[in-house]
Amino acid sequence: MYKTKPVHSCHMPAADQTLRVLALNGSLKHRDTISNTEELATVVIDDMRKLGPVESEIIRLADKAIPVGLAYREGDGDDWPEIVAKIRAADVVLFATPIWWGGRSSLMQRVIERLDSLDEEYIASGRSALYNKVAGVVITGSEDGAQAVLGSIMEVLTFMCFTLPPECCAYWVGEVGKPVADEAASRRMNAATRHMAMNLARNVSFYARLLKLHPLTID
Amino acid sequence: MYKTKPVHSCHMPAADQTLRVLALNGSLKHRDTISNTEELATVVIDDMRKLGPVESEIIRLADKAIPVGLAYREGDGDDWPEIVAKIRAADVVLFATPIWWGGRSSLMQRVIERLDSLDEEYIASGRSALYNKVAGVVITGSEDGAQAVLGSIMEVLTFMCFTLPPECCAYWVGEVGKPVADEAASRRMNAATRHMAMNLARNVSFYARLLKLHPLTID
Amino acid sequence: MYKTKPVHSCHMPAADQTLRVLALNGSLKHRDTISNTEELATVVIDDMRKLGPVESEIIRLADKAIPVGLAYREGDGDDWPEIVAKIRAADVVLFATPIWWGGRSSLMQRVIERLDSLDEEYIASGRSALYNKVAGVVITGSEDGAQAVLGSIMEVLTFMCFTLPPECCAYWVGEVGKPVADEAASRRMNAATRHMAMNLARNVSFYARLLKLHPLTID
Amino acid sequence: MYKTKPVHSCHMPAADQTLRVLALNGSLKHRDTISNTEELATVVIDDMRKLGPVESEIIRLADKAIPVGLAYREGDGDDWPEIVAKIRAADVVLFATPIWWGGRSSLMQRVIERLDSLDEEYIASGRSALYNKVAGVVITGSEDGAQAVLGSIMEVLTFMCFTLPPECCAYWVGEVGKPVADEAASRRMNAATRHMAMNLARNVSFYARLLKLHPLTID
Repeated sequence: MYKTKPVHSCHMPAADQTLRVLALNGSLKHRDTISNTEELATVVIDDMRKLGPVESEIIRLADKAIPVGLAYREGDGDDWPEIVAKIRAADVVLFATPIWWGGRSSLMQRVIERLDSLDEEYIASGRSALYNKVAGVVITGSEDGAQAVLGSIMEVLTFMCFTLPPECCAYWVGEVGKPVADEAASRRMNAATRHMAMNLARNVSFYARLLKLHPLTID
Repeated sequence: MYKTKPVHSCHMPAADQTLRVLALNGSLKHRDTISNTEELATVVIDDMRKLGPVESEIIRLADKAIPVGLAYREGDGDDWPEIVAKIRAADVVLFATPIWWGGRSSLMQRVIERLDSLDEEYIASGRSALYNKVAGVVITGSEDGAQAVLGSIMEVLTFMCFTLPPECCAYWVGEVGKPVADEAASRRMNAATRHMAMNLARNVSFYARLLKLHPLTID
Repeated sequence: MYKTKPVHSCHMPAADQTLRVLALNGSLKHRDTISNTEELATVVIDDMRKLGPVESEIIRLADKAIPVGLAYREGDGDDWPEIVAKIRAADVVLFATPIWWGGRSSLMQRVIERLDSLDEEYIASGRSALYNKVAGVVITGSEDGAQAVLGSIMEVLTFMCFTLPPECCAYWVGEVGKPVADEAASRRMNAATRHMAMNLARNVSFYARLLKLHPLTID
Repeated sequence: MYKTKPVHSCHMPAADQTLRVLALNGSLKHRDTISNTEELATVVIDDMRKLGPVESEIIRLADKAIPVGLAYREGDGDDWPEIVAKIRAADVVLFATPIWWGGRSSLMQRVIERLDSLDEEYIASGRSALYNKVAGVVITGSEDGAQAVLGSIMEVLTFMCFTLPPECCAYWVGEVGKPVADEAASRRMNAATRHMAMNLARNVSFYARLLKLHPLTID
């Protein structure tokens, strides 16, 4: 079980450099509807901003056309190549997803399937485009599944060559059987989730800034 | 997410026959300490008793000697053969476990490892000793992991040849970050968990009693 | 680990009645491309046919429009209501999916998300439309993830009120790092997978036919 | 699916400093029996040695007394405190486990349960003893479950404050249904597993050595 952790600041390398943060939000809801997952991702990004300059963007995947398939581009109107370009430009990528029956959302799963083209590129070129990028994970669910979804995403991210810092996740889950209407308020008041967000923000910032100064460089 | 379900009675076949129920409790706590998992398993068994005669036993695995290994008997003093005999005699087996960091407990994992000898017996004899036995799952955790643990146990149980009825699980998980001291009280008052227990009791009873009358019989 | 099991026939109740079998194929490939998952699902259905009359249909989800969302109908052109009607009419539903980085495909995840409307119906009516329906699972992957995907689907299916018979799954996974081009041939020759398919076919047939004669009937 | 990756050297910081590597082997076999998991962990450590000086130890958990419980010391004869001392002294910890029915072994699960005392220490002191330690994961199974086990361990390690480098795992799984007797030979010849081991060795070395020079330092 996760127990609420203390929050402290740390020495921050390259604190004057701008971090580019991209959040991919796998919520099932469209732009005009509030997403719990997006709200928590925003909290993390705001916490990062307190530690140094940040340029950020959140992509609501439900509003993008990301067809099924494994190619880099799956026909006209495929928004995936544009998303890949933003991943390439980012220092930190936050994978943000709700939980549906214990699994990452179908939109987050689609992202994972489509990342296959970057895996093929790594094999062909001998260089992963994702070395020296740091990943964080943001998860909200009604009552269960955060750690399982976290693990299922982390194992993909490590083989995709992201760096995973300590405490790389902020999540919220409530008690089983409680009214959905009360979830957002409970989440906002939850100290465990709040502390996870701050430690996630600090740790992704530390590792992303450290790797800007001292990147893993393939010979 | 699990949403609280209605509870209704159903036609119960073989309602006068006695069901033998065995619960394996994978709690990390020893006999003298209250186990949340055992308390919930007891609720399920009591609910079963309302639907027809039941003989039951709960084994606290933490108090048994179950050495690591894959054999039917791992040396002197191994309690596993005695547990297997009770599984063979049961109509219903409840696999009850707490959650530790998203996984079934080490004691429940040990049980799964030791079930290997029954799998070998099935291969050798062409008959599984576990056909026509019905399994239920009982899970308690502080805040997360019930559905993941459930899935991870169900996939073993199906290949071990147990029958898994609808709504084969009763679980409780609380909100992340809440005090451990409040868990037992919250669980006892939780309507979702209470309904899960009643539907689990009804459904394992129905399938176990139906299979007493109409067993799967290998030619 | 799954070890190859013997195959035997069993007494089959209601052997003259027709079973309606629906397979939902979550392959990422479109209709004109061979799907390994579909090929294995077809083997299972053919095996069922040897045990009694079967009417079957396989739906290639990649060719259906199933928009993101939780409603019964998500706008015009949503194919989900038509799929739900077929699920309601079926005695046996096979959930067939490839594995992508350890998870069920985005199309199978979409199905699970959209099943939410049936869960709401159960809560409102007190009766699940899925009682007395038997589920089987068919999984193909290159090298890893079958049991995890199986568990993650089973825990949803049980709460959706499907009955899960013993050995409710047939899967194939190969050795890590082997050429994708050899997978189909290896799978077709694999005795473990072949036996799993036959035992799955026998067991879903037994339980579906038994429940036709002796259904769980809510008072 | 994991596809075989190229292997290249990288710039290695602090290449003259000695890394202390501790491997925890959760094999079910005792000391006198060859452990596939240990053999693969040894390959990784040997690969690390080519990149700079390494002091290493492998602990065979099956030969230690690690009683069930959550305390730092569970009675006399508990070997856990001695293992914790070695974890504290290590720069790199390799968590090595076989797979049993899709899960980490009962011995690895026991380690995770017992790590609870370090989690409590972090809460009490505000400092995790595991910051700036790098973790790697080594997994062997007959045919399935590596990525699921990997994810289930990674999510614990990140909350325990380990740093997880890119490609933080080396694993082997074979084709379903193949003879157990052939596993070791197949694993030793497998190029995917060999490359995973080399990239794991390079990446844990890079991050552990980088963090020696530039640790995360809590204010």
